[in-house]
Amino acid sequence: MSEKPLSHFPVPELDDLPEDVRARIEDVHEKAGFIPNVFVVLSHRPAEFRAFFAYHDALMEKEGGLSKAEREMIVVVTSAVNRCPYCIVAHGALVRIYGKTPLLADQLAANYLSADITTRQRALLDFAVKITERSHEVSTHDFDALHAEGFDDEDIWDIAAIAAFFGLSNRMAALTGMWPNPEFYLLGRLPRRAPENGGSGDDS
Amino acid sequence: MSEKPLSHFPVPELDDLPEDVRARIEDVHEKAGFIPNVFVVLSHRPAEFRAFFAYHDALMEKEGGLSKAEREMIVVVTSAVNRCPYCIVAHGALVRIYGKTPLLADQLAANYLSADITTRQRALLDFAVKITERSHEVSTHDFDALHAEGFDDEDIWDIAAIAAFFGLSNRMAALTGMWPNPEFYLLGRLPRRAPENGGSGDDS
Amino acid sequence: MSEKPLSHFPVPELDDLPEDVRARIEDVHEKAGFIPNVFVVLSHRPAEFRAFFAYHDALMEKEGGLSKAEREMIVVVTSAVNRCPYCIVAHGALVRIYGKTPLLADQLAANYLSADITTRQRALLDFAVKITERSHEVSTHDFDALHAEGFDDEDIWDIAAIAAFFGLSNRMAALTGMWPNPEFYLLGRLPRRAPENGGSGDDS
Amino acid sequence: MSEKPLSHFPVPELDDLPEDVRARIEDVHEKAGFIPNVFVVLSHRPAEFRAFFAYHDALMEKEGGLSKAEREMIVVVTSAVNRCPYCIVAHGALVRIYGKTPLLADQLAANYLSADITTRQRALLDFAVKITERSHEVSTHDFDALHAEGFDDEDIWDIAAIAAFFGLSNRMAALTGMWPNPEFYLLGRLPRRAPENGGSGDDS
Amino acid sequence: MSEKPLSHFPVPELDDLPEDVRARIEDVHEKAGFIPNVFVVLSHRPAEFRAFFAYHDALMEKEGGLSKAEREMIVVVTSAVNRCPYCIVAHGALVRIYGKTPLLADQLAANYLSADITTRQRALLDFAVKITERSHEVSTHDFDALHAEGFDDEDIWDIAAIAAFFGLSNRMAALTGMWPNPEFYLLGRLPRRAPENGGSGDDS
Amino acid sequence: MSEKPLSHFPVPELDDLPEDVRARIEDVHEKAGFIPNVFVVLSHRPAEFRAFFAYHDALMEKEGGLSKAEREMIVVVTSAVNRCPYCIVAHGALVRIYGKTPLLADQLAANYLSADITTRQRALLDFAVKITERSHEVSTHDFDALHAEGFDDEDIWDIAAIAAFFGLSNRMAALTGMWPNPEFYLLGRLPRRAPENGGSGDDS
Repeated sequence: MSEKPLSHFPVPELDDLPEDVRARIEDVHEKAGFIPNVFVVLSHRPAEFRAFFAYHDALMEKEGGLSKAEREMIVVVTSAVNRCPYCIVAHGALVRIYGKTPLLADQLAANYLSADITTRQRALLDFAVKITERSHEVSTHDFDALHAEGFDDEDIWDIAAIAAFFGLSNRMAALTGMWPNPEFYLLGRLPRRAPENGGSGDDS
Repeated sequence: MSEKPLSHFPVPELDDLPEDVRARIEDVHEKAGFIPNVFVVLSHRPAEFRAFFAYHDALMEKEGGLSKAEREMIVVVTSAVNRCPYCIVAHGALVRIYGKTPLLADQLAANYLSADITTRQRALLDFAVKITERSHEVSTHDFDALHAEGFDDEDIWDIAAIAAFFGLSNRMAALTGMWPNPEFYLLGRLPRRAPENGGSGDDS
Repeated sequence: MSEKPLSHFPVPELDDLPEDVRARIEDVHEKAGFIPNVFVVLSHRPAEFRAFFAYHDALMEKEGGLSKAEREMIVVVTSAVNRCPYCIVAHGALVRIYGKTPLLADQLAANYLSADITTRQRALLDFAVKITERSHEVSTHDFDALHAEGFDDEDIWDIAAIAAFFGLSNRMAALTGMWPNPEFYLLGRLPRRAPENGGSGDDS
Repeated sequence: MSEKPLSHFPVPELDDLPEDVRARIEDVHEKAGFIPNVFVVLSHRPAEFRAFFAYHDALMEKEGGLSKAEREMIVVVTSAVNRCPYCIVAHGALVRIYGKTPLLADQLAANYLSADITTRQRALLDFAVKITERSHEVSTHDFDALHAEGFDDEDIWDIAAIAAFFGLSNRMAALTGMWPNPEFYLLGRLPRRAPENGGSGDDS
Repeated sequence: MSEKPLSHFPVPELDDLPEDVRARIEDVHEKAGFIPNVFVVLSHRPAEFRAFFAYHDALMEKEGGLSKAEREMIVVVTSAVNRCPYCIVAHGALVRIYGKTPLLADQLAANYLSADITTRQRALLDFAVKITERSHEVSTHDFDALHAEGFDDEDIWDIAAIAAFFGLSNRMAALTGMWPNPEFYLLGRLPRRAPENGGSGDDS
Repeated sequence: MSEKPLSHFPVPELDDLPEDVRARIEDVHEKAGFIPNVFVVLSHRPAEFRAFFAYHDALMEKEGGLSKAEREMIVVVTSAVNRCPYCIVAHGALVRIYGKTPLLADQLAANYLSADITTRQRALLDFAVKITERSHEVSTHDFDALHAEGFDDEDIWDIAAIAAFFGLSNRMAALTGMWPNPEFYLLGRLPRRAPENGGSGDDS
């Protein structure tokens, strides 16, 4: 696999990048210990890079009713629908780390319907999958079902927006032929491995 | 339809918005003569609003191998796959205006396979639909087919990124219950109607 | 588009047609002001032409519990499932004219689930779509749901028969490469335009 | 099964029918030895009955490049796609009788791709299935493939129109809950049974 | 059809088979009056042959809450989902024989949803189809629905295991190009024909 | 997860099992260091247990043109189609161990089309997926494509039979609610971990 290129498109040298893009990449490198490939691949287009990570941060770094682990669960499950190896593996690592659940990510990727989750999480993931597969069928019944599990309207926006944003991310990964850094496969699987910062997929 | 709310979520008053968000909205209002609902609905979340329109502009306002009409054709066809009335109607208007083709948008929304388009446009739309429906099957064969029609790699990125971005947009429209401004339905249909600025869907 | 033929099959001269077929075409020409292409294209086979329009009239010209606009709504929605540009555009015009709803047809073609319709119309269209996509699943539960909305058994037959007949029509349009007359695209969109007779798709 | 009604809708007495409808039914009764249920069920609506059988005869009784057995093969295969028991069983009998192939109908109903047919018949059935499942994808490539097997344009119209017409028939059978007469199940299975007239499904 | 080989793979002579395999085949030959092709085709791999028929007998020859006819109904309906002519035709004969229902098998193969069955049988077949098409969605709700129809947990295992085993069988038939013996098509259709032993598909 | 039962069905004590079944389980326990849940869950039905593992061994323990890693790759990819967590996780471990490819199993489970495999392996997996999803479309073209990659007919039987057998296995896992032993998740991921015997999923 060593010769497989990181992307079907040119990958800029770090020194050739605009200052803010480079700073973002250096920051994630320092925190995670490696540079997740999504940063490298998307830096080919700095304007889109900035919008992509601004959108990402607005959804994944905010406060709100969804825990960090739940947000990552949405990413893994919707990326499994879209069959995106990069996002399943990278965000699977984050599910393990944030949720301290070393087995859950693989269950979610295989079949969230039988995964070891709560009723609340099942409702959350059902809605994320509906947004992913057939958003045109969304109705007030979906809002009612989520309210019944304790989600408010802002949570519902978060669920849908995360599913929608990673739908975009999945497609960019498919276009560019992005593959997960080898580090992601093991992160969070071993009890003794507890990095202060998880080395996120898209995150600094 | 007059009582149907613009969004399932709160819609802020223009005066309550951050300065830059308000400025963007006033700008599009002045150019188009009305405020496309997508600006109003998404302003509920200013951080996401900024990222959304930054992404939009990076893809739709740039120079490149695709004409403005071709970009809008991608939006109409992929939004038809996702069955998103807002984007079909609003960007259908832009197809008519930019392409000076009063009949094409309705053909594309119904069935792009039989629409009155060139072989090049057919290849472009086939790829946009593949990104939309089954991006995990994208391979170098797709790149070859597009190269054969004269597209270069940067064009291919543009096609895929536009399809991916409007996939996100379609899902946000479904979530919020966004509906098209009545103005969009007629824009570009009448030979005598030729506004200097098209009153775009997402654009200023 | 001017050189695109009306049909993949021969199109007879009006004078070469049997008397009754020609009379029917002249009649629709007089009433609508133009000859909808479906008349021209199907006249290649007079026996089938006669059966087609006899069937059409038996379903669309009859009295009954469904309004003229509702019948045309069925046609637009089932033709959208079948992705038939001719029927979507031609019968979209009739939805606008009969219902005095200049925006509804485009909403129905994009996604009837979010269109501005009544609960009764939603039930009617759900059944029409079921007949179109998976008629083998029809059961007495469907009858019950329609009765609950005030439809009687004869209305149910009408809904299903219209969906079934236009499923045939959609397939003949696909076979022949039929495209909508340019006149249909604009009919019923402008408040001032109110022809006494709508210039129907298949109708005199 | 004896109490199961012939139709979810009223079934008229023969004597209450218009003269021409009754004559048609008496004619098929005499030739087949029994009255196929489709005649009884559809007589509830005489105007549609007349159009239905006029259409049927225009397609199934005409001369042309397709043999009678091939026409019935189209009906069985497209009715299997639509999962219509009435048409599979009734027209399966006609495949056996016209083709003198006692085993073929069951093979076609199960999986025409592995049935004992010629390359020409495979092309014919591939096209009939395409018209049935995804007519919006029909293109000149389909015409080319059929020409290569010796079909001319009129044959192609016949194939598509038969598939389209029986798509309508399948849906009317589902609506009404039509079930096949017991006689059809055995017709043409036994070498010694060779009626002069096959006792057709829809035919006189 | 006479020259069509029994299998895409070599078919051993009876005398070249291991003693136990040959004995099994001779036994079914004696009871049924002919050798169902599945025995001949699978004997190419004796170890798999033994496992296949051991599995078959464990599911189909056992006592339990499902009647012999009900077990065969599962086979016909799931084989129709998988479009396997061998199993539809061979086990359709067993449905006719065990159930003394000469018409039922053809109804089940066409569309079990409209077949002449009991509510209990409908629940049984719904579950068998779910196991066949989307087993990953099975949940305790399915168990509840089956309990409500009087099935106990061991019955539920039987239904699922039969559907799963014949899913394997369907795929082996497709691989090898197995076709049904002509004898199966007629078995159980004629009132006077009542063999002591049904000449089963896979069974002795 | 600790209280989640191993199976929806009773799980016998080891001492209550027939001698041969218990011996098989003790054997795998000794070799793998733990008892894979599939042995425990299926022991509820000893006759089916014996047939299941006899079939398994006939396909997975035999000599032939497919390597042990390739056989397990088939299992992972077809189980991903069927969304079976047990088989994906357990046989993913075997892919890692037999192939000495610590990253490959997760790639295959996510999207084999973009996994790091050879052209030969791609052909093998394409055929396994076709057998899994649409075996009724298998034709001599599939054999030709596999021959072109160096597979002979016996290899082709192996591929299809493994896909078919694990299709059965996936469905039994769904029925019983089988979940993977925690040990499987980590096996083969760490360079230093190289057990002499892999602790297989179904194997001794």
